[in-house]
Amino acid sequence: MSRKPVIAIVGSGSEIEPPVSNARELGKLIAENGWVLITGGRDVGVMKAANEGAKEIEESLTIGILPDGDVDASPSVDVRIVTDMGQARNNIIVLSADVIIACGIDGAGTAAEVSLAIKNGKPVILLGASQEAMGFLEKICSDRVHSADSPREAISLVNRLLGLNSGFAG
Amino acid sequence: MSRKPVIAIVGSGSEIEPPVSNARELGKLIAENGWVLITGGRDVGVMKAANEGAKEIEESLTIGILPDGDVDASPSVDVRIVTDMGQARNNIIVLSADVIIACGIDGAGTAAEVSLAIKNGKPVILLGASQEAMGFLEKICSDRVHSADSPREAISLVNRLLGLNSGFAG
Amino acid sequence: MSRKPVIAIVGSGSEIEPPVSNARELGKLIAENGWVLITGGRDVGVMKAANEGAKEIEESLTIGILPDGDVDASPSVDVRIVTDMGQARNNIIVLSADVIIACGIDGAGTAAEVSLAIKNGKPVILLGASQEAMGFLEKICSDRVHSADSPREAISLVNRLLGLNSGFAG
Amino acid sequence: MSRKPVIAIVGSGSEIEPPVSNARELGKLIAENGWVLITGGRDVGVMKAANEGAKEIEESLTIGILPDGDVDASPSVDVRIVTDMGQARNNIIVLSADVIIACGIDGAGTAAEVSLAIKNGKPVILLGASQEAMGFLEKICSDRVHSADSPREAISLVNRLLGLNSGFAG
Repeated sequence: MSRKPVIAIVGSGSEIEPPVSNARELGKLIAENGWVLITGGRDVGVMKAANEGAKEIEESLTIGILPDGDVDASPSVDVRIVTDMGQARNNIIVLSADVIIACGIDGAGTAAEVSLAIKNGKPVILLGASQEAMGFLEKICSDRVHSADSPREAISLVNRLLGLNSGFAG
Repeated sequence: MSRKPVIAIVGSGSEIEPPVSNARELGKLIAENGWVLITGGRDVGVMKAANEGAKEIEESLTIGILPDGDVDASPSVDVRIVTDMGQARNNIIVLSADVIIACGIDGAGTAAEVSLAIKNGKPVILLGASQEAMGFLEKICSDRVHSADSPREAISLVNRLLGLNSGFAG
Repeated sequence: MSRKPVIAIVGSGSEIEPPVSNARELGKLIAENGWVLITGGRDVGVMKAANEGAKEIEESLTIGILPDGDVDASPSVDVRIVTDMGQARNNIIVLSADVIIACGIDGAGTAAEVSLAIKNGKPVILLGASQEAMGFLEKICSDRVHSADSPREAISLVNRLLGLNSGFAG
Repeated sequence: MSRKPVIAIVGSGSEIEPPVSNARELGKLIAENGWVLITGGRDVGVMKAANEGAKEIEESLTIGILPDGDVDASPSVDVRIVTDMGQARNNIIVLSADVIIACGIDGAGTAAEVSLAIKNGKPVILLGASQEAMGFLEKICSDRVHSADSPREAISLVNRLLGLNSGFAG
């Protein structure tokens, strides 16, 4: 049995553009590739858009790593993993993903997720990152931090990064 | 969009009978009902058998809540949630499930999972529990602890418990 | 430098007797012995009484492992460790203690803490446990579960258990 | 009863200068002020130096939030809180501290801790941060991120930040 790749989309809970539109397109492309989408699961911002994008594809599978059972989960999340762990759930998202895509990195929550991904040895793709973010993150780790200008370029990078991982057909 | 029920099977990592055979049958029945199976995800004992049973059904979906990325995950787990949380991951399993089924309750790990489920207000079905376990668990909580003598009886109980929950169609 | 033993008192958040009076006496005895007291830190029931008992002794040190920063912490807790982990913080309490004392075991939360302690190989002393609790817990693990009839008997047991542990002078 | 302020020192596990010397001086100054020191607790780098510095003062209290029970804890840690949570323990360190001081921010682990501190609304002091780090962190949050050039300047900032918090005598 071969496991499907799991791709995380992380980003702000605010309705900011272009991160939200990018997340929607990324979610759809991830599902079209037959990959599993994992997010923070809430019904706001980048999380909501990514899951909605994925569910435009019939065979998609979306997993939400939720802070607790009371929070509004996106109805586009197929399976809700309820952690009761607040911000510490970020660590579970990045550990469970094969590649992490950050749609914008304008907030402290996303910065923490990206930092944890790097710390845990996971490849990270920054989509639409500010120069300040790229400058800092490349300084702390240049070889696992990648930059993309569009959702399609991010997906090409995911394909390349998965191909490097012997655990997948490739 | 309506969410599929998520059913947890918990139990020992040892190859003890009848818990392991019961877990295999339960996993298959859960998948036949179109429910999502969630377990501790390791390739041993009750966890392994439950996932293998579920994967006999083509449309099944199996989620494994793993302690870390180094542990042997069951190849029958579709999506690996890596927690890096050791025993504390038990709390995530019970919070993410609509009903928890314990196949035997002969070890401290399963006792902790059942206790956490009760504490979190989740219904628990004990399959093949000792008299000592039933005596104690019914004493601390009689109204959410149920007992079943066979996998089929456990599944009937799940159906009844899900029907009581307005979140599902059934 | 030699580390002071850390003793956990676990039990209900309700104002039930004799667990609350026992916890108060235990807290004082733990502090008199120069040991560090660790609890769930909240200002209710067994936790509150244990911390108040300890603070009757000037040189006492009390650590509270709190669920979050909003909960009412006992003013008798010297250092608040804020986990944002809900019930999963139980695992931290038992892992950080050298010996765990349960004052009564009438609720699911305490049952989970005792089960996790056993699972993690920590010695547990049950003070005032029901016959049903002893029957069940001795069945799943007879060699690390001890029973005491009074706070003073519990403290004698702690002394004996610490003496078995080469990490301490005693 | 009034609680003592708790100050976290975070930073690399590597033996890099000047962060390690700064951490040693900071640890001593924190203890001289009668504050509690909290760190990641390991016997390496910034953590080790901070705890050793604090223990030069007789009345000091040092708390270590450790990943697990097997890791080498600094012998200068008075109370070991064992989390079994890997990187997710960072969240506990920042939630338990009133102010967080980062000695250098050259690695992903420290970047995650600082980001989590900001996300959780805690004040952060960066001691010896690179221009890239300051540029990025001030962009995501300018009002809770402070910069210091020396341990003494950092301690002055802590005093000012604690004075703003009505929970302390000031």
